[in-house]
Amino acid sequence: MTKPQLLEVLAQVERGALSPEDAASRLRSLPYEDLGHTRVDHHRSLRSGLPEVIYAAGKSTQQVLEIFRALAVSGVDVLATRVAAEAAAAILAEHPSAQHHELALTVSLRRSETARRGHIAVVCAGTSDLPVAEEAAVTAETFGAEVTRLYDVGVAGVHRLLAVREQLDAADVVIVCAGMEGALPSVVGGLVGVPVIAVPTSVGYGASFGGVTALLGMLNSCSPNVTVVNIDNGFGAAYTATMIARAGER
Amino acid sequence: MTKPQLLEVLAQVERGALSPEDAASRLRSLPYEDLGHTRVDHHRSLRSGLPEVIYAAGKSTQQVLEIFRALAVSGVDVLATRVAAEAAAAILAEHPSAQHHELALTVSLRRSETARRGHIAVVCAGTSDLPVAEEAAVTAETFGAEVTRLYDVGVAGVHRLLAVREQLDAADVVIVCAGMEGALPSVVGGLVGVPVIAVPTSVGYGASFGGVTALLGMLNSCSPNVTVVNIDNGFGAAYTATMIARAGER
Amino acid sequence: MTKPQLLEVLAQVERGALSPEDAASRLRSLPYEDLGHTRVDHHRSLRSGLPEVIYAAGKSTQQVLEIFRALAVSGVDVLATRVAAEAAAAILAEHPSAQHHELALTVSLRRSETARRGHIAVVCAGTSDLPVAEEAAVTAETFGAEVTRLYDVGVAGVHRLLAVREQLDAADVVIVCAGMEGALPSVVGGLVGVPVIAVPTSVGYGASFGGVTALLGMLNSCSPNVTVVNIDNGFGAAYTATMIARAGER
Amino acid sequence: MTKPQLLEVLAQVERGALSPEDAASRLRSLPYEDLGHTRVDHHRSLRSGLPEVIYAAGKSTQQVLEIFRALAVSGVDVLATRVAAEAAAAILAEHPSAQHHELALTVSLRRSETARRGHIAVVCAGTSDLPVAEEAAVTAETFGAEVTRLYDVGVAGVHRLLAVREQLDAADVVIVCAGMEGALPSVVGGLVGVPVIAVPTSVGYGASFGGVTALLGMLNSCSPNVTVVNIDNGFGAAYTATMIARAGER
Amino acid sequence: MTKPQLLEVLAQVERGALSPEDAASRLRSLPYEDLGHTRVDHHRSLRSGLPEVIYAAGKSTQQVLEIFRALAVSGVDVLATRVAAEAAAAILAEHPSAQHHELALTVSLRRSETARRGHIAVVCAGTSDLPVAEEAAVTAETFGAEVTRLYDVGVAGVHRLLAVREQLDAADVVIVCAGMEGALPSVVGGLVGVPVIAVPTSVGYGASFGGVTALLGMLNSCSPNVTVVNIDNGFGAAYTATMIARAGER
Amino acid sequence: MTKPQLLEVLAQVERGALSPEDAASRLRSLPYEDLGHTRVDHHRSLRSGLPEVIYAAGKSTQQVLEIFRALAVSGVDVLATRVAAEAAAAILAEHPSAQHHELALTVSLRRSETARRGHIAVVCAGTSDLPVAEEAAVTAETFGAEVTRLYDVGVAGVHRLLAVREQLDAADVVIVCAGMEGALPSVVGGLVGVPVIAVPTSVGYGASFGGVTALLGMLNSCSPNVTVVNIDNGFGAAYTATMIARAGER
Amino acid sequence: MTKPQLLEVLAQVERGALSPEDAASRLRSLPYEDLGHTRVDHHRSLRSGLPEVIYAAGKSTQQVLEIFRALAVSGVDVLATRVAAEAAAAILAEHPSAQHHELALTVSLRRSETARRGHIAVVCAGTSDLPVAEEAAVTAETFGAEVTRLYDVGVAGVHRLLAVREQLDAADVVIVCAGMEGALPSVVGGLVGVPVIAVPTSVGYGASFGGVTALLGMLNSCSPNVTVVNIDNGFGAAYTATMIARAGER
Amino acid sequence: MTKPQLLEVLAQVERGALSPEDAASRLRSLPYEDLGHTRVDHHRSLRSGLPEVIYAAGKSTQQVLEIFRALAVSGVDVLATRVAAEAAAAILAEHPSAQHHELALTVSLRRSETARRGHIAVVCAGTSDLPVAEEAAVTAETFGAEVTRLYDVGVAGVHRLLAVREQLDAADVVIVCAGMEGALPSVVGGLVGVPVIAVPTSVGYGASFGGVTALLGMLNSCSPNVTVVNIDNGFGAAYTATMIARAGER
Repeated sequence: MTKPQLLEVLAQVERGALSPEDAASRLRSLPYEDLGHTRVDHHRSLRSGLPEVIYAAGKSTQQVLEIFRALAVSGVDVLATRVAAEAAAAILAEHPSAQHHELALTVSLRRSETARRGHIAVVCAGTSDLPVAEEAAVTAETFGAEVTRLYDVGVAGVHRLLAVREQLDAADVVIVCAGMEGALPSVVGGLVGVPVIAVPTSVGYGASFGGVTALLGMLNSCSPNVTVVNIDNGFGAAYTATMIARAGER
Repeated sequence: MTKPQLLEVLAQVERGALSPEDAASRLRSLPYEDLGHTRVDHHRSLRSGLPEVIYAAGKSTQQVLEIFRALAVSGVDVLATRVAAEAAAAILAEHPSAQHHELALTVSLRRSETARRGHIAVVCAGTSDLPVAEEAAVTAETFGAEVTRLYDVGVAGVHRLLAVREQLDAADVVIVCAGMEGALPSVVGGLVGVPVIAVPTSVGYGASFGGVTALLGMLNSCSPNVTVVNIDNGFGAAYTATMIARAGER
Repeated sequence: MTKPQLLEVLAQVERGALSPEDAASRLRSLPYEDLGHTRVDHHRSLRSGLPEVIYAAGKSTQQVLEIFRALAVSGVDVLATRVAAEAAAAILAEHPSAQHHELALTVSLRRSETARRGHIAVVCAGTSDLPVAEEAAVTAETFGAEVTRLYDVGVAGVHRLLAVREQLDAADVVIVCAGMEGALPSVVGGLVGVPVIAVPTSVGYGASFGGVTALLGMLNSCSPNVTVVNIDNGFGAAYTATMIARAGER
Repeated sequence: MTKPQLLEVLAQVERGALSPEDAASRLRSLPYEDLGHTRVDHHRSLRSGLPEVIYAAGKSTQQVLEIFRALAVSGVDVLATRVAAEAAAAILAEHPSAQHHELALTVSLRRSETARRGHIAVVCAGTSDLPVAEEAAVTAETFGAEVTRLYDVGVAGVHRLLAVREQLDAADVVIVCAGMEGALPSVVGGLVGVPVIAVPTSVGYGASFGGVTALLGMLNSCSPNVTVVNIDNGFGAAYTATMIARAGER
Repeated sequence: MTKPQLLEVLAQVERGALSPEDAASRLRSLPYEDLGHTRVDHHRSLRSGLPEVIYAAGKSTQQVLEIFRALAVSGVDVLATRVAAEAAAAILAEHPSAQHHELALTVSLRRSETARRGHIAVVCAGTSDLPVAEEAAVTAETFGAEVTRLYDVGVAGVHRLLAVREQLDAADVVIVCAGMEGALPSVVGGLVGVPVIAVPTSVGYGASFGGVTALLGMLNSCSPNVTVVNIDNGFGAAYTATMIARAGER
Repeated sequence: MTKPQLLEVLAQVERGALSPEDAASRLRSLPYEDLGHTRVDHHRSLRSGLPEVIYAAGKSTQQVLEIFRALAVSGVDVLATRVAAEAAAAILAEHPSAQHHELALTVSLRRSETARRGHIAVVCAGTSDLPVAEEAAVTAETFGAEVTRLYDVGVAGVHRLLAVREQLDAADVVIVCAGMEGALPSVVGGLVGVPVIAVPTSVGYGASFGGVTALLGMLNSCSPNVTVVNIDNGFGAAYTATMIARAGER
Repeated sequence: MTKPQLLEVLAQVERGALSPEDAASRLRSLPYEDLGHTRVDHHRSLRSGLPEVIYAAGKSTQQVLEIFRALAVSGVDVLATRVAAEAAAAILAEHPSAQHHELALTVSLRRSETARRGHIAVVCAGTSDLPVAEEAAVTAETFGAEVTRLYDVGVAGVHRLLAVREQLDAADVVIVCAGMEGALPSVVGGLVGVPVIAVPTSVGYGASFGGVTALLGMLNSCSPNVTVVNIDNGFGAAYTATMIARAGER
Repeated sequence: MTKPQLLEVLAQVERGALSPEDAASRLRSLPYEDLGHTRVDHHRSLRSGLPEVIYAAGKSTQQVLEIFRALAVSGVDVLATRVAAEAAAAILAEHPSAQHHELALTVSLRRSETARRGHIAVVCAGTSDLPVAEEAAVTAETFGAEVTRLYDVGVAGVHRLLAVREQLDAADVVIVCAGMEGALPSVVGGLVGVPVIAVPTSVGYGASFGGVTALLGMLNSCSPNVTVVNIDNGFGAAYTATMIARAGER
């Protein structure tokens, strides 16, 4: 409920159009829609200016489809992440204009092609980090940012990274995905003058502990412009990166 | 070494003013200063546009003093964090215009009072989180941002947080410091439409594990605009927040 | 063995109806039934006034069936949790009046519909927490409590939680199920004046560590009316909640 | 803000005694007092019916004194936990009727001796668990409950526990404090028909990991009436236990 | 090399049939047999007086069969643990007098039925601990000990344990298998005056961490006659228990 | 309460010398002495045939003294472990015949020099493990065993261990204390045919984690005759070892 | 880019054959080949003198095949590790002279049979460690070293290890693979006068934690000539061992 | 026992001055010296060709002095690490020609200045890593290697590292010390063609966990020429590095 709406409710009370009891009840109710299993929050989009997003992991195809439909009918852009093949097929059958990004495991529905705002570089250390990097890249593109992909530039061959330095310098914010020792964000952070969002990936074996080692390495980065999100959370990195990149365009 | 400098070196070679051998040697050398124990990196400030910073923990008073001096003579703003009382006194004796922030454990030396750029809200959950919150606030102020402090607004009394919502809404970016269960960034993240940088603090006992529980909670935040830094790293949060807040002012 | 039974044994000795040797042997024996693999404890129900419960995970269908039968013949209410589909089918074939709750993975057999005693609110943070929340809700209902379900009211949209505040206020005790950062019990605990039992769920990915992050967050709750049970232990939460809610009705 | 207060505000708007703008501002403000470093929450006591509590660890003597004073002037009962000797002395100098419990590290200020409501048994496994057990016992007594102390009844001599069984049976709720393997709550939970709140203590060495082993053991208790609080959190256990014991007296 | 063989070598030296040098060399060339993938150690049986054992987990059916055969031909008793169904069938096909214990996952080949030496009680907390308890019981029986099984006597119903106290008192050593909180060895240890070998089992869920909680609980037992083996290591417990029980019979 | 005592109570009831009510109350009481802070358990000595032991860590000098006195007056042998210098001095002042072992941090009071029963070898890996090894050795001697000390025989110089092999072979049971990688019990276990009790010590740095690495290594020992106690628990190892060594002498 | 190449570029600028702008661009470019998903680094081989290696885990058969081909066409030796059966078959179909080592999960393509340089002993503790040991052995052989395999010589039968001492003494460097307690490198390290590279394996169960216990044991080795690689990383051990063994042949 | 001594024993056998039996016995009694608390191992020096070393941490000044003396009298070079100031002073008082390296916490006694053999580069990431780096450097120098120190070249300013690349290229082996995220060995490993020994340091705070994060990062290095030692183990790295560097000089 926006401030104007709040003032409107109170004005209605002032002019007798609304009883105090009804106003009290309205002031407690907020704009979400109850699907039984899920309370769809149309409010978030309003607050952040970003499209609605469905995290599909752990939801049935039926649930994903219902939430997607509830969002789509409101006319906003919609993004679903961690979408299994079956659920993706079901969405596309119902929403033919939606797009399925197989490597990124996402389905996006964009209504209007607005001008790109802000520039995000998505960097990853190795071939195995691609699904996470793509989740980030597709999310940022769905949210309207321009994205440059710089893949397989791990720190064991630092010359590969230096070779793409100009492309790094052009970005408003850099997303860096890396597994194993997770050292790449520190090196990238030292090369650029903008925020770096580090995404640890679950790539590795043995003492990589499913991404924990990369996560810890990134949290201890000696580059002070590095912040970190959860393991494999390409979506979250892109969500925040879009907010930052947009600020640069305001 | 900036691109114009690189082109200048190569132009000198072209016009015979510099031999290839000398150019090769220069292209490998970069602008840092070797104090024996430390290689002072004048380059970072150049890249990021932010002042030089000294992390004083684990360095002797003598070492801190030498690095502070080496930076100060170059005319830039200087910030030292995690400064013990003795080292702070030594710096102030040599640099009387420097400022000691006792609660934040920082010493800052600002040369010119430029206009504030960007607006950062620093939020903390409880009284014990103040040192970390102040490290963040003082750092952001030294870096030229406008800072609003919103302290002791923990989630167990969510009405305290809702009461400062307008002040939150005014910020370009929000820094949230919390120990114990570290739940505050999730709630704040849901209330605002800008990036939230979460700083877990080592406040708590028992199963708080010196801030690890707060750190894990923040990494798993269900608000997608939350990124995280290391435990008690108020400085890093403010460093990145300043970059973001500035972008909004460009 | 209850105190009256103990006095009766001793009275028999006093009047010569029982030899000291036989009494000694009886005093050591207690009312359980030995199925070979399991010693069915008819005593617990006697102590707690609650129905018998079978934890079916890790038991064969045959074992579950035998224990269910041994309890059912004694005429008490019976609840089986973590029941696989096959075992549930087997129980229902033998006990047609039993009820299978598929989402909750439970089978319950109630003999008499007594009046509801005590009021428990079961709250959960997201759609994926439903199986745990339902295990709690069904258990509490089987044990005779009135249950209000308040689902998908996570902290990233705190207005959804505030919107159900009156329903929370009506409860004698609140069960809160949440995965990921597990912040919901702290916020709920601050809103209500009754005990909150927090159930961490294994919902999440990466650094959620199968519910450990939620568990740690709940143990460090800054709301002092929060106590915690094991990850995904909806049953245990409901068991204790029923005891508390009943006390309020005494 | 209670519901009657909310209706009153709205009624004032209806009758023109309050402008919508002022009402909007009031509806966002809530009853806490800002000491600068701390927002004293007079609201919690209102919600829970329990006295105000100060967690003194990590606060300066001056801060503790100011919060204690701010609460005391409002006329409610006050309890401060984890109070260092110096802070305790300072409080008693200012509030001569306050009571210092040295072993429990608490200071309490009770205004009226009301009748005891509810019965709590506080059990501990060994002599070293006494400080935690006493924090629980003193807290419960300050909150108005009747407390029975049953100390040094560890599981390695289970006969000591069986010997106090009647005293256990008399309680509305049992608090069990134990370090090392933390097995006591399971055994007590099997003996009684009321809720058991388990408090792991940091007593032990080596693989006790400062109470983590006891905590884990309690979370995995095979007695379903056991819920758990943070390591050494005698206060939290007593807070919830008082709520439960009171319910039994309603 | 059996003890008679060793004495024969020394006798040959005494009567001049073997030079000391050759004898020295033989005594150094140690009695193991190289199967390529495995060096079968006939020596261990000589040192310990216990049969040869094959740990079949992670070995192919072919490898298990070859090692079993190599041991069997030497005439000693043979025990194979963690034997998959397929490997068990293969062994029995080749050695019809061997015995397959399905629940314990073992295959044993006993050559002579010698008198039972020593008395071991195998206790377990719940039905799910049976496979581990049976591995221990079958191992001890194969090694010649008399075994009493006392199953499903967990601490949440301590009367069930007290009811079998006389059987506990009759043992030379007690093996206690328990998962979840692993409290049973502490209670048993307090009841008996002989060594207790605790076997944590991987039974449990959530914060039981696959047996780690039980393991930690047992290591922190307040009963000083408790020692611990690895999670699910029923075999190791029985191996040591047999050595202890035999000592009592010497 | 022994079985004869139980029969006597019941016989008194039979002959009318005791009312059932009084008998019931007696049957619930057991032989311990309540010092207020501690319930001294005279029963354990009765069960195990071993002296009473006081774990002095975390107890005040006054408490240690009171418990020591309560045990000493009953005429049994007494052992106190983890005794600080001050408490040791206080005990010796009151009990001049007691003995203080400084390196082992123990005080022992033996009443009668009985013949040594059983032979225990105490082995340690390095010089820094001596305090733990001595706690074990002194405990075993106080309990009446013959002890052979074999110190500084770590696995990095396996020839030092082989050089003491004959002394190892003479023991009924071997206690092995080691920190760092904790490999010694595996090697010793392979050399001897008797039980090995492994004691991880907190000796080491970095990734030794205060003895956790040694503990884990010992739990995973490939020698099946190795059981393990808590980190630095020399006392527990000696307690069980004495039981085992005695069995061999029966 | 080697130094001669750098000087050549600069010389071209000097003689006007290259513009400064073009030179600047070249100085930033480095010799790798971009396959889209992977930047093949022909540079590494140049730096280390060792063949190119493909880590096939987590790559599709198609990706593995493309990288293998890209390396093979450049004429160097190629090694692929962690190759699934399907990918191995695909490689062999295209490169008939390549060799598939099934147990080691590797495929190697050697172009010229050069003389063996350096001598590496590969030691393992048990039969289950063979896959890791073979990955190391095959890697070292592909890289041109002479390899001696010494398998199944675990520390619980230290005589088996002493029996192969002469073969150990002949090596320039020893690779030791062990799971469970990981004690073997310490014992081997004490026997030889050359570097030992320890490879923890994921062999074991329960508290072996997938190789973590072995890893920690090796890191805490009391033999100072032991360094450690990641769990199951036979390849990395062989890579470094080859470098060391070669040095001895220079 | 030195090699000449060994040959002398064998010669005596040859000329009949020593019976084979006596020789066998002498060859088995191995050359260590028993100081009571320590078995000084003169054998290791013989095996490795490196000086004797005393790890002084956790030993009393008196013990350190006795071991130092026992080694010094045998004429070999001696190195003591982790030497507290007091112990260092005591050694120097007795051995005036010994050298105390304060930052490295070592005392070394070199008897003959032999020619330097092999070249080791010691690299560290930041000023706080200096004590560990110096322990490595001083150890390597005492062992006879030539050492190049390259300090404060962390990855956040990768140009500082590239600037010292020629010095890196000159080394036979590189030791890299780094705390925090521990990324430096990966980058260095990619730049050089020789073995890199990574030493995690305990430098950092929060989620650096006393060096564990750096340790894990190094174990997961994507550069295959990196092996790892324990946290802060500069000595062990130098010990192995010397062996490797020497090999290159053979």
